[in-house]
Amino acid sequence: MKITVLGAGMVGRAIAADLAKVHQVSTYDISDSSLALSAKGVNAKQYDLGQYADYPVLLADADIVVSAVPGYMGYKTLQSIIECGKNVVDISFFPEDALALDSMARKHNVTAIVDCGVAPGMSNLILGYYNTKMKIENFLCMVGGLPKQRIKPFEYKAPFSPIDVIEEYTRPARYVENSHIITKPALTDAELVDFEKAGTLEAFNTDGLRSIMFTMPHIPNMKEKTLRYPGHIDLMKSLIKAGFLNTTPVSFKGNTIRPIDFSAALLFEQWKLKPEEEEFTLMQIIIEGTLDNIKTRIEYFLYDEYDAASQTSSMSRTTGYTCTAAVNLIANNLFMEKGIFPPELVAKQVGCFDFILEYLGDRNVHYRKTIIAC
Amino acid sequence: MKITVLGAGMVGRAIAADLAKVHQVSTYDISDSSLALSAKGVNAKQYDLGQYADYPVLLADADIVVSAVPGYMGYKTLQSIIECGKNVVDISFFPEDALALDSMARKHNVTAIVDCGVAPGMSNLILGYYNTKMKIENFLCMVGGLPKQRIKPFEYKAPFSPIDVIEEYTRPARYVENSHIITKPALTDAELVDFEKAGTLEAFNTDGLRSIMFTMPHIPNMKEKTLRYPGHIDLMKSLIKAGFLNTTPVSFKGNTIRPIDFSAALLFEQWKLKPEEEEFTLMQIIIEGTLDNIKTRIEYFLYDEYDAASQTSSMSRTTGYTCTAAVNLIANNLFMEKGIFPPELVAKQVGCFDFILEYLGDRNVHYRKTIIAC
Repeated sequence: MKITVLGAGMVGRAIAADLAKVHQVSTYDISDSSLALSAKGVNAKQYDLGQYADYPVLLADADIVVSAVPGYMGYKTLQSIIECGKNVVDISFFPEDALALDSMARKHNVTAIVDCGVAPGMSNLILGYYNTKMKIENFLCMVGGLPKQRIKPFEYKAPFSPIDVIEEYTRPARYVENSHIITKPALTDAELVDFEKAGTLEAFNTDGLRSIMFTMPHIPNMKEKTLRYPGHIDLMKSLIKAGFLNTTPVSFKGNTIRPIDFSAALLFEQWKLKPEEEEFTLMQIIIEGTLDNIKTRIEYFLYDEYDAASQTSSMSRTTGYTCTAAVNLIANNLFMEKGIFPPELVAKQVGCFDFILEYLGDRNVHYRKTIIAC
Repeated sequence: MKITVLGAGMVGRAIAADLAKVHQVSTYDISDSSLALSAKGVNAKQYDLGQYADYPVLLADADIVVSAVPGYMGYKTLQSIIECGKNVVDISFFPEDALALDSMARKHNVTAIVDCGVAPGMSNLILGYYNTKMKIENFLCMVGGLPKQRIKPFEYKAPFSPIDVIEEYTRPARYVENSHIITKPALTDAELVDFEKAGTLEAFNTDGLRSIMFTMPHIPNMKEKTLRYPGHIDLMKSLIKAGFLNTTPVSFKGNTIRPIDFSAALLFEQWKLKPEEEEFTLMQIIIEGTLDNIKTRIEYFLYDEYDAASQTSSMSRTTGYTCTAAVNLIANNLFMEKGIFPPELVAKQVGCFDFILEYLGDRNVHYRKTIIAC
């Protein structure tokens, strides 16, 4: 099939490389230096993807489109792809509500799978899958991507722009408790949790539930927490309290500067994941509820490292291959429904979840499942 | 006597107010708003004290001059005062070596007492006094000015510009150990120390010995440490490591900005001591050596708080009244030597140390002395 990947960032390139093994792949990005790192066999062309009016021509011969653009342009990009009548898998993780485009997607006869990475992504798929099998009481997802080498003071590397990470640290976090949506400041409820391989990490509230707050209204307790090395969050809280991440501009030597922009610029180099720098992705999902009349706890555990052989970061592999698995669901007519589908709704379709798990396993991304009857 | 106080900042104003009780006092500053806070009876006039060529006219009728200008202009100001042939007490704490002006002061028949605050100031006086009485082995000074209300993340208020405080946090710190000058990075050797009234504080190396490194070469161990609430220094270290206090300019949106300048601007309001805000000054001096053939440990302890009655900060009182005591030493012909005198050399003159202690006691600044024979 002909597949067009919009965006040739770290994850976009991993997606294009994986798909190019079987499909005919084109990729577009504004950055020539990003495109230059594209895999052999990928048709890479420089293009300003903000030129939405060009999409009908740009995507004319694509069978399936992948949107791997930055979050801030994700919604408009997805809308433009749908208007072209193209099936699409989206991992831009834009802040707007994708489901608002559902009727438009149906009208254009488009299958659009959104938020299809690790978390959101696999976390939604796992929840959606067990939602068809059991009465779920509690859902907890703890997830983080971290460098193996811990460099003070942040002990962190961002797989995307620091300002997007900072945004995650400042946006109020929502979770569901006793069937009510609770809103708390970001970075709250920090707790130390011990993990296999990674040791003790700090888990804290982030606004990561996204679509499942609305597609899974019958589940009374749902929470997502982000993981960092202990201490990172205290430092970020201090920076926030000291005003370094303020979005209100201050006047400085005749200029107007938003402290968050200046801080992000300072952090950019320090938080940049270097080529071949070892990192890992860790996710622990805990689902509790009633399965076949038995109180059951189901755990999924992912610990995935940088792959030196293919020089592909764990973040790219775990995010990108979930996305390419979804592309192949569509390519193989395993998922043909029309509209906007976050992964928890894709998992309702028999066979989809197993297909994706197997697809990831073939690429050495392994989720370990534990089922405990309580 | 006619006394001119250069600089009407927080400490300069307290100095002028104290001197005006007995003397005829004029004060100059570039800031009208600072001058407006001057005490009754002080003749306050707006003047740009950077106009050094005007000093012969400006200081023409002064018997004694006090320099309470910002540190960065202190050296040039002192030099200009000396060139006018005026006796002077300096608390500008400039970074340059005051003793370089010694021959000039002698030539102009000027008595110049420098560094005459708390530390440097009283710490030097105490050391200089006991240096005439005993063989000193160890000298340790721990000192800090802190707000009573602890507000996260810094739990600190600066009695002067944040950039001067930051400079103290980044300048390598020197101390004397086994008769060698040791240079360490600032903020090193942090240790938690319990103090009466203030509780546990964190002491760390700063470059505060100044003149005594050179005037007291026979004392084998001398160390000055600054005190902050625990945690402050870790946060400052993180900011330093993260580049927020770098002095190398970075380019940001078409401008060239030194991160330290932008950070200082952000911290300025947060670190500003508000009028009537309660703060305290704490200093502990430990001198160990041989007195009358007995191993002896001498401790001086100062804990001084904001004075609500006179609305005068502790920092102003403890620093300013040491300075005004020295002015009165000169006014009363108790100290008449010509040249540059850091306080440890003033204390060699019989009667001077006791005069200053009594002067401070009259103003409710009390040092508690403890002598322990070991």
